[in-house]
Amino acid sequence: MLARIGRATCVSASQRFLHVAVERNAAFGQISEKDVAFFEQLLGAGGVVTDPDALEPFNRDWQKKYVGNTKVALRPRTTEQVSELLRYCYSRRLAVVPQGGNTGLVGGSVPVFDEVVVSTAAMNRVLEFDEVSGTLVAQAGAVLQSLDEYAGQRGFMMPLDLGAKGSCHIGGNVSTNAGGLRLVRYGSLHGSVLGLQVVLPQPLAGAAGAGSGGGGGGGDGRVLDLLRTLRKDNTGYDLKQLFIGAEGTLGIITAVAIQCAPRPASVQLALLACPSFPAVTAALRTARRMLGEVLSAVEFLDSPCSHLATAHLEGVRNPLLQGGAAEGGGGGGGGEGVTHGSVGSAPFYMLVETHGSDADHDQQKMERFLEAVMGDGSVVDGTLAASEAQAKSIWRLREGVSEALVRRGAVYKYDVSLPTSSMYELVEALRARLAAAGFGADAGVLVVGYGHIGDGNLHLNISAPRYDDGLLSLIEPYVYEYVSRHNGSISAEHGIGLMKAQCLSYSKGPVAVELMRRIKEVVDPYGIMNPYKVLPPRPA
Amino acid sequence: MLARIGRATCVSASQRFLHVAVERNAAFGQISEKDVAFFEQLLGAGGVVTDPDALEPFNRDWQKKYVGNTKVALRPRTTEQVSELLRYCYSRRLAVVPQGGNTGLVGGSVPVFDEVVVSTAAMNRVLEFDEVSGTLVAQAGAVLQSLDEYAGQRGFMMPLDLGAKGSCHIGGNVSTNAGGLRLVRYGSLHGSVLGLQVVLPQPLAGAAGAGSGGGGGGGDGRVLDLLRTLRKDNTGYDLKQLFIGAEGTLGIITAVAIQCAPRPASVQLALLACPSFPAVTAALRTARRMLGEVLSAVEFLDSPCSHLATAHLEGVRNPLLQGGAAEGGGGGGGGEGVTHGSVGSAPFYMLVETHGSDADHDQQKMERFLEAVMGDGSVVDGTLAASEAQAKSIWRLREGVSEALVRRGAVYKYDVSLPTSSMYELVEALRARLAAAGFGADAGVLVVGYGHIGDGNLHLNISAPRYDDGLLSLIEPYVYEYVSRHNGSISAEHGIGLMKAQCLSYSKGPVAVELMRRIKEVVDPYGIMNPYKVLPPRPA
Ligand SMILES: Cc1cc2nc3c(=O)[nH]c(=O)nc-3n(C[C@H](O)[C@H](O)[C@H](O)COP(=O)(O)OP(=O)(O)OC[C@H]3O[C@@H](n4cnc5c(N)ncnc54)[C@H](O)[C@@H]3O)c2cc1C
Ligand SMILES: Cc1cc2nc3c(=O)[nH]c(=O)nc-3n(C[C@H](O)[C@H](O)[C@H](O)COP(=O)(O)OP(=O)(O)OC[C@H]3O[C@@H](n4cnc5c(N)ncnc54)[C@H](O)[C@@H]3O)c2cc1C
Repeated sequence: MLARIGRATCVSASQRFLHVAVERNAAFGQISEKDVAFFEQLLGAGGVVTDPDALEPFNRDWQKKYVGNTKVALRPRTTEQVSELLRYCYSRRLAVVPQGGNTGLVGGSVPVFDEVVVSTAAMNRVLEFDEVSGTLVAQAGAVLQSLDEYAGQRGFMMPLDLGAKGSCHIGGNVSTNAGGLRLVRYGSLHGSVLGLQVVLPQPLAGAAGAGSGGGGGGGDGRVLDLLRTLRKDNTGYDLKQLFIGAEGTLGIITAVAIQCAPRPASVQLALLACPSFPAVTAALRTARRMLGEVLSAVEFLDSPCSHLATAHLEGVRNPLLQGGAAEGGGGGGGGEGVTHGSVGSAPFYMLVETHGSDADHDQQKMERFLEAVMGDGSVVDGTLAASEAQAKSIWRLREGVSEALVRRGAVYKYDVSLPTSSMYELVEALRARLAAAGFGADAGVLVVGYGHIGDGNLHLNISAPRYDDGLLSLIEPYVYEYVSRHNGSISAEHGIGLMKAQCLSYSKGPVAVELMRRIKEVVDPYGIMNPYKVLPPRPA
Repeated sequence: MLARIGRATCVSASQRFLHVAVERNAAFGQISEKDVAFFEQLLGAGGVVTDPDALEPFNRDWQKKYVGNTKVALRPRTTEQVSELLRYCYSRRLAVVPQGGNTGLVGGSVPVFDEVVVSTAAMNRVLEFDEVSGTLVAQAGAVLQSLDEYAGQRGFMMPLDLGAKGSCHIGGNVSTNAGGLRLVRYGSLHGSVLGLQVVLPQPLAGAAGAGSGGGGGGGDGRVLDLLRTLRKDNTGYDLKQLFIGAEGTLGIITAVAIQCAPRPASVQLALLACPSFPAVTAALRTARRMLGEVLSAVEFLDSPCSHLATAHLEGVRNPLLQGGAAEGGGGGGGGEGVTHGSVGSAPFYMLVETHGSDADHDQQKMERFLEAVMGDGSVVDGTLAASEAQAKSIWRLREGVSEALVRRGAVYKYDVSLPTSSMYELVEALRARLAAAGFGADAGVLVVGYGHIGDGNLHLNISAPRYDDGLLSLIEPYVYEYVSRHNGSISAEHGIGLMKAQCLSYSKGPVAVELMRRIKEVVDPYGIMNPYKVLPPRPA
């Protein structure tokens, strides 16, 4: 097995998506038998994966788009083990990729070459829950949905929710600063994360007593212990914020303290059909005004997204359309309407959700809201979930879009912030641009838009029968330039990863990028933490 | 005038409060006539203050406790001027103190020796307001209350509110990560600040075209332009977070973008009397449950605080007590009850406020809440403000406590986070400790507690006839040790400043402190930004 380990000359599949070649950093060490022996001694045989088949899921991302070539994946169980293995990797200059649920969408969670994967999968314990204040402390590998269920049994809920909740880890959520479906109400992780424990690649303080681990001093001086559950703490720079969204390039998060929200006594969910995108934004404004403090989510999807989800996923239907199968509309191939706009359904759908403490009050507010939007024509059809099961099924329509896109074939994903009122113009402009170049619906290319409209966040996706460099070069840098011109962000929530590391300057100026680099160098002088990701290489 | 400028040998008054001497850093330059001439040429004569009388308010803090000895205060009007003056100070190694409204409570906003004061007072313009999304962009020197009025005229409100709102600047609020009265509802500035523009002491990127200023490149490479109004932006490290709460030690914030909240259609405010501290926390839990999403503030003050405010401030009364003057109770000297507990009134008061979109719903919720807390005995008396004027007058009782304390004499202020349920035990323990050492109520020493109980934040204050080192040595390090032992924070919101720079390690471990130092060194290699503050000196 170890014979197969050698210089990683593999050209990562991901390079196809970059327009730029990434070269392996020759300063990094290469895994040897001795290294594997050390890891096995530290973690036990069960904590070290070297079998090529077993390594495959560690090497390949959720989209099957980025494929690395690691020879070893580690599954530590404790902070002390993480600290010890980072000490070792640092001394051997072995590059490291932290991996949570591996649901990231920008190629950040898998190796580019032969980086060591450090998975948090075996670190999934809840460490503490305060039933009065709702503060939760968990190891970084706890799965978001399990934590939400745990909190739910105690009258609380996690302040974030997203389509990947069944597999993503809380440490991965924090590392990507995941936004998700309820940010509009519960805010970002920069506000709700109360504390973090992070293992740094480099020791920053004298070693504490041998074997002490954790605590203030922090093992051998590389454990940054900021694991508090205080709502307020202004003692020096708020260092934890640096790691929220750092995508594993500054250290490995081993535990997270987070403020849960009280579980709402009353939940309502409406699915609405809107005749145009301006109608969607009008309904959003009305929702803000009339649902006020109970509004908990506002999502939108265009009609092609609805069709994709119902066509490609088992049991998903759009209750505003007659019969699950009949909705193919215009009659495109493969059981889905690949034409745009003429699908015999509304061009846009919205999900509007409320969370409140009083069902009567919430219902009254929802009724008045629905009257208002139906009255002014911003909504032409709608349905209110009558049960939790119906609500789940409506959510599945929205949350299934990502998965449906991946099942359909190749997909180019962009996740941008733009001024809400004109957000959809990018979808239309790109659709026209691609069609004009022969990549229209007739060629099987779909340009679709959906996302967290309450936060000004558009998911722009291009679905195609196969990956095609010609198609890609029509999309990039066009999309980034468009977003930059409109003062948007080229990554609202998915992050930069490998996918956009060369594109950071579309959203951040040279002073900001240089400050990021210097912080990276201070924390990780050898650059072993998740290399090639997030920061563009310094110009020569 | 310039003849009086020389080596600052002045022993700052603040040293008395530190138990530790601070020595002027001899590497810093000293202001010369040439420097003043440069500043006058850059800012005009009106932008440069050198007259000793006119300098006095720049040298002295709000509590009149920290007094510096600057020879020059600057009042730039634009980011370009700030950039230019920092370039100059950097080249001359002149130390700099950024100053906003100078309402900070930890000696951070005034010079320790002869540092140059850079005031944001002349930078108070609103730059942009989006009437649909409620995003506001303003220069750093805009006064919080003016911004709230500006937003109010457009249907929005600032997401933070605090007693000093009439004088504090938004840049100062961000630099101290101010919490305030409504954090329980609108969250911390780490969540609501969308963007910042910061001038760094050191250039980090090549100079842009001469005179270009602002923009991506940023003047001469020291303008960090993160001034976006996007709700979501995950493009690299979230650098703005570093400056939120950095207390001027990393650069000068010149502009702030912030998410305003919709102004509530309905506001209610109750003042409640509670028979004990456990009753206060019981009422808090009930408020959380029954007021849910409309709860916007939960404050508490003990009876001595109420007495202080009514005794020392014009027109302030406690509506739950009969007649303004009669409430002196126990009959202590100076028109106030200096005894504890026996003041003929309830031992604790609470303010409970709601912000909602529907007055009927909110009233129903408040009525049910009041029934519940009166029913279970956690509240024994209460009043609901019947008008905005009454609400203002109740708020004045709570917000006036700080000012009343300062008027009464010397005051030692501590601002800690502790587990809510046992928070008041610190007040009682310290009261007993001081009384036992001869610093009881009969000696004119009051130990009082109030604060943002909804956030676990206690303001512990010791009021005394005069500052006394013997008294101080009974308070410190006792308070810090107590807080550290209970896993609290020695500064919930006021920050570290000069007051607690030597005490940071009560709340942060050595790895964290070292990482802060390294970040400071990367951004400010000569240490000219607000020296002697926040970070303890490196052990020799
Ligand atoms: C169906 C689907 C829906 C999604 N919906 C949303 C959405 O609504 N909102 C949103 O924001 N995102 C969404 N995402 C993407 C999102 O980023 C991830 O789902 C999630 O936050 C990543 O968590 P993870 O544990 O899978 O992390 P991974 O994918 O394993 O890792 C993501 C990044 O974080 C790093 N990392 C992981 N764990 C750690 C750690 N412990 N310490 C340091 N670094 C670490 C990795 O190196 C990598 O760079 C979605 C993804 C899918 C597949
Ligand atoms: C009556 C009263 C009530 C208060 N209530 C609260 C409360 O409820 N919650 C709370 O959190 N605080 C409270 N405070 C303290 C609080 O920190 C300040 O009122 C406020 O946030 C500071 O703003 P300022 O403009 O006065 O800043 P200053 O006092 O001028 O400065 C504070 C710190 O920030 C730095 N600074 C100021 N401006 C800038 C800038 N543009 N760039 C970089 N650094 C800068 C200074 O160097 C200093 O270190 C209160 C103070 C008073 C007097």
